[in-house]
Amino acid sequence: MDERIHEHARTLVEWSARIEAGDDVVVQVEEGAHDLAVAVAEQLGEKGANLVATYSSDEVTRAYLRAFDGEFEADPDYELALYEQADSVLVLKGSNNTAGSVDVPGDRRQAYATARQDIREARLDTDWVSTQHPTRAMAQQAGMAYEAYKDFIYDATLRDWAALAEEQARLKDILDAGETVRIVAEGTDLTLDITDRIAVNSAASVAYDSHNLPSGEVFTAPADTAGVVTFDVPMTVQGRRVSGAKLTFKDGVVVDWEADQGMDVLTEVIETDGGSRRLGELGIGMNRGVDRITDNILFDEKMGGTVHLALGRAYDACLPEGETGTESAVHEDLITTMGEGSRLEVDGEVVQADGTFTWE
Amino acid sequence: MDERIHEHARTLVEWSARIEAGDDVVVQVEEGAHDLAVAVAEQLGEKGANLVATYSSDEVTRAYLRAFDGEFEADPDYELALYEQADSVLVLKGSNNTAGSVDVPGDRRQAYATARQDIREARLDTDWVSTQHPTRAMAQQAGMAYEAYKDFIYDATLRDWAALAEEQARLKDILDAGETVRIVAEGTDLTLDITDRIAVNSAASVAYDSHNLPSGEVFTAPADTAGVVTFDVPMTVQGRRVSGAKLTFKDGVVVDWEADQGMDVLTEVIETDGGSRRLGELGIGMNRGVDRITDNILFDEKMGGTVHLALGRAYDACLPEGETGTESAVHEDLITTMGEGSRLEVDGEVVQADGTFTWE
Repeated sequence: MDERIHEHARTLVEWSARIEAGDDVVVQVEEGAHDLAVAVAEQLGEKGANLVATYSSDEVTRAYLRAFDGEFEADPDYELALYEQADSVLVLKGSNNTAGSVDVPGDRRQAYATARQDIREARLDTDWVSTQHPTRAMAQQAGMAYEAYKDFIYDATLRDWAALAEEQARLKDILDAGETVRIVAEGTDLTLDITDRIAVNSAASVAYDSHNLPSGEVFTAPADTAGVVTFDVPMTVQGRRVSGAKLTFKDGVVVDWEADQGMDVLTEVIETDGGSRRLGELGIGMNRGVDRITDNILFDEKMGGTVHLALGRAYDACLPEGETGTESAVHEDLITTMGEGSRLEVDGEVVQADGTFTWE
Repeated sequence: MDERIHEHARTLVEWSARIEAGDDVVVQVEEGAHDLAVAVAEQLGEKGANLVATYSSDEVTRAYLRAFDGEFEADPDYELALYEQADSVLVLKGSNNTAGSVDVPGDRRQAYATARQDIREARLDTDWVSTQHPTRAMAQQAGMAYEAYKDFIYDATLRDWAALAEEQARLKDILDAGETVRIVAEGTDLTLDITDRIAVNSAASVAYDSHNLPSGEVFTAPADTAGVVTFDVPMTVQGRRVSGAKLTFKDGVVVDWEADQGMDVLTEVIETDGGSRRLGELGIGMNRGVDRITDNILFDEKMGGTVHLALGRAYDACLPEGETGTESAVHEDLITTMGEGSRLEVDGEVVQADGTFTWE
């Protein structure tokens, strides 16, 4: 087995999930993630943790959901008990076909998700971590050869996370102390009020309230927004392509929008509810191992030299006690590249210029 | 997908496990059983049952057990809760390498099993059914080409189970009423006392106390045994080959034994404890879809025209209330072919001659 798979498993179990002896761990294995599952099992054995492996397959889910014609039972006891009593959930993504369940009717999928709210919350209450094993299907989605995609995945995932956590702490301190962020890039001049908001140092570990491996971003929740932003990175939003999206904000609210592609889905997102016209997140990518866009949000939004903004729901971790942020049924990330001539300023001080932080 | 996979899933869910709307079902998916899992998920969706899929992999188990160096926790809560609250467990066997975990130390494996006794019992308390999806590894173990092996599996599995249950009921009635069974075949002349013992009509359904798909046998628990029996079917016993085993019984106990191959493992089994010198089961294979030996006990012992005897533990279902049968840590099945010139008699009446039942 590729030695990097073992290192991936070690990073997941030790740095990310902080597994200890006696922990009750659920390992959710997607169809194509078998090799990573084997390596993770070895790490869990070494730690003296307990292991239950579940099987996660779009094809299984598709067959089940398409055949189900009735009301889904709310949070079946046996599954709820499994997650309520688990300490950690390790999600090993590894799809063999990213379109494997596109023909499940949306309302069926939504009804199933709605019926499983307590199970979802029980899972989120554990020390869960989501990670990606490289498969040919994911390489294809990224438009990359398989071997090159593997290099990409491990360059992004096998970082010196302790060092990155320290670097990110610098930016967190600046954002925590700051009141106004200004983002200037091609087609973008946006001002965000972050007074009293709390930045999260997302360093790919539950110890940092971070549940993705890889991670590598610092994010906060803006309270007010004004100006214009252009998202030059093409994205898949609710299964549809969006590129060249441009939003204009006034008093915190989107007042005008356009897109080269995907105008209808962009409009749907913005018009979902009251909160979906506001920003819920400002995220600053700091993972220099992510050197290209691969149409996978787990990686794209972490790319060093990018900034992402999410329409909709804000994360509680960014809000001081007693304050509520944007509330919405959606949280849609859109990404802009901080290229030549770009600037990121906090209270008028330049923090990043031409995509490079001042301390880099 | 091969239409037979759908039919297999339908047989499993409807005939064998008798799944109904709202049932909490655990589907245990082995590495190579993905296609059957998809078909089973569709059936469960149609029934309106709940579905949790677990991942069963010798490679995952091997990595975990080899790395684990300490004491296993007894029955971890989260896994116990899953099975205690489940209604059914469907075990979809489908190995990609039947030697996938041979290098796990036996004591480690044993310690792990011992620590999970309550979990095992909780699983056995459900309406569990174990079945086999054809893989190339299983075809190889059977010494068969893959396409031919698939035909073999489905011929054995997709039977008219209701009709077989009726036929088996005839034999059950004869055995229930009978006192003495005599088996005469090449190298075999054995007499078994089955007075008051209860025969089980094992018709591949939980409705018949039968937990294997395929099944197709009637079995009981002899109280006393005398004579000699030769097992001409080669078997894998505890991972080792046994062929040409010949046992001599006196007053219910093995007093002499020999084998062409595997004398040491045969001796180990016989000398395990007090019960392992006695018979715990007399089983009569009645599945005419099993037309050859494939080195897979799930199929071999069901083959029509064979008889199997197990050294060791008897099944409770065969014992009248208040009576105890053979107790032992082992239950090892050995098979003999009822060929030309063979006879199976109950109380002196011939039930089967030359491998054919009188009513066939």
